[in-house]
Amino acid sequence: MTDTPVTGRTIHVHRQQYHFAWDHSIAPIARIQAGETVSLDMLDASCGQITAESTLDAIHNLKFEGVDQVNGPIYVEGAAPGDTLEVEFLDLQPGNWGWTAIIPGFGLLADEFSEPHLKIWKLEGGADGWAEFAPGIRIPIAPFCGEIGLAPAADGAHSTIPPYRHGGNMDTRHITRGAHLYLPVEVEGALFSMGDGHAAQGDGEVCGTAIEVPMQATVRLTVRKDLQVDEPQFLTAGPLTPRTNTAPYYATDGIGPDLPEAVRKAVRHMIKHLQKTYGLSRADAYMLCSVAVDLKLSEVVDMPHWLVSAFLPQSIFTSAK
Amino acid sequence: MTDTPVTGRTIHVHRQQYHFAWDHSIAPIARIQAGETVSLDMLDASCGQITAESTLDAIHNLKFEGVDQVNGPIYVEGAAPGDTLEVEFLDLQPGNWGWTAIIPGFGLLADEFSEPHLKIWKLEGGADGWAEFAPGIRIPIAPFCGEIGLAPAADGAHSTIPPYRHGGNMDTRHITRGAHLYLPVEVEGALFSMGDGHAAQGDGEVCGTAIEVPMQATVRLTVRKDLQVDEPQFLTAGPLTPRTNTAPYYATDGIGPDLPEAVRKAVRHMIKHLQKTYGLSRADAYMLCSVAVDLKLSEVVDMPHWLVSAFLPQSIFTSAK
Repeated sequence: MTDTPVTGRTIHVHRQQYHFAWDHSIAPIARIQAGETVSLDMLDASCGQITAESTLDAIHNLKFEGVDQVNGPIYVEGAAPGDTLEVEFLDLQPGNWGWTAIIPGFGLLADEFSEPHLKIWKLEGGADGWAEFAPGIRIPIAPFCGEIGLAPAADGAHSTIPPYRHGGNMDTRHITRGAHLYLPVEVEGALFSMGDGHAAQGDGEVCGTAIEVPMQATVRLTVRKDLQVDEPQFLTAGPLTPRTNTAPYYATDGIGPDLPEAVRKAVRHMIKHLQKTYGLSRADAYMLCSVAVDLKLSEVVDMPHWLVSAFLPQSIFTSAK
Repeated sequence: MTDTPVTGRTIHVHRQQYHFAWDHSIAPIARIQAGETVSLDMLDASCGQITAESTLDAIHNLKFEGVDQVNGPIYVEGAAPGDTLEVEFLDLQPGNWGWTAIIPGFGLLADEFSEPHLKIWKLEGGADGWAEFAPGIRIPIAPFCGEIGLAPAADGAHSTIPPYRHGGNMDTRHITRGAHLYLPVEVEGALFSMGDGHAAQGDGEVCGTAIEVPMQATVRLTVRKDLQVDEPQFLTAGPLTPRTNTAPYYATDGIGPDLPEAVRKAVRHMIKHLQKTYGLSRADAYMLCSVAVDLKLSEVVDMPHWLVSAFLPQSIFTSAK
């Protein structure tokens, strides 16, 4: 179901129509007129290496060169370098299972979490449902795609791991159903691709994975010649995080002259708070931060010290702590 | 008025009882029993150098060594190094005027804004009122104090400009009435001080000033021997930004390998968006970012690129744009 009437042709993208790099030499799988819609059936970000039945062996055996595939590319007629591609998210439906992992060598605190961990989630209620982390802790599902991007003008294969000015792995939790995303077009046809379904995530995605899910999505692609953006911009669907911002938050600060280290300190303090207050293991606390805790830049001017705050929504705790 | 019943003795701190450094050698102005309350009458962060009638000359003549005074210190009986001081914000009442300035050499984009600017605000409706930025743009008042801190164990005078592990200039907009703040005690008696009233601010305070106001505050100070924190932590009073998170947000991203530069890029893009969309001057757009735009760390793991997002609440625009 969509809130916005869908008009015109819809192109269907199948789950095997993916690629592993942002590269303008990759041939488009379809061409559409601007204003048409695209529905995509997407595997999770492990490209099917992890399933609902996986055990920790799946992380031990994970081929990192086979993750973060994106489905596409779609050639949008009329899109030219200097234009903006507007992506309207008409629908986002996660699968009924998901995974979160600590992958050695990856994540904000990679130096401190050297052992792999894997959590398989059972998801109930679809896009408006819940993901139970543990008895008494449940995360409202708020689906979005981590990867949304266009092909770059620069020649060659660009990794799908980082985000770029032309989009990619933005991992931005607020680009949910009803949002409008604006991406700078660098090549003829824009060459749009998407992937990396997330059922829920905190601002930051600190352990490197969210609730990773297969996703079915429908988007409308429009060429905006009246708008130029230097990097991605977006309009959210409404107020932010309406299903979690319903109660107080507990916040931990990281303060200091090195901004990345201040980020790490805020997260370390939150991990410690979760261990002490809720009896979680250190690895579980780190994963819970990744799927539910939001990072804010509280102050960026009182030099020489930055202040980063990690915000834990108390609304995810359904029983007395 | 307070929501929480105030019991026991209340100590009154007058507006001239301030100091300009975090320094454990500064003699306390009062001693209280833990659990007692303190009411503070505080000048704005310019220590009275700027008034409701000031013109730009006040910024030209501003003595920077005479800003960010804090009222106190209060000695809390029983507080010892290793304890935590809990600060409960029972009341925060801003004055009926405020100021926002661009001060040369200060702020996130100091290199790009070399000229001084001063905006005087008329504030109506007290703590639940509004601050009109321009016709059609109004900011809901959400008062808090930028400076809340304790004396450090380290000898000497420590500037009140940066925040520290023992608090100070945290400039954290979410520590509003009803919040509980937890600060690590480093010296006997904790030596609590507070100042820097803000009627409203975005996460980040990017131009270096918020809506700076005189403030009257009442806090309850409690010693927590059961709790240890490494850096400040806090519990908010309820859902975040309830008066602004009522409509969509427009967000601009800054992406790249250098995190401080990604912060700056996100803000530059927002300034450009505000200029283009609402016809603001560049300086006005920068000041509006400081008082109303929230900085989030959208992703901190997809290396080599960080992604920072600046979020503009559409709810502040009361007329059609």
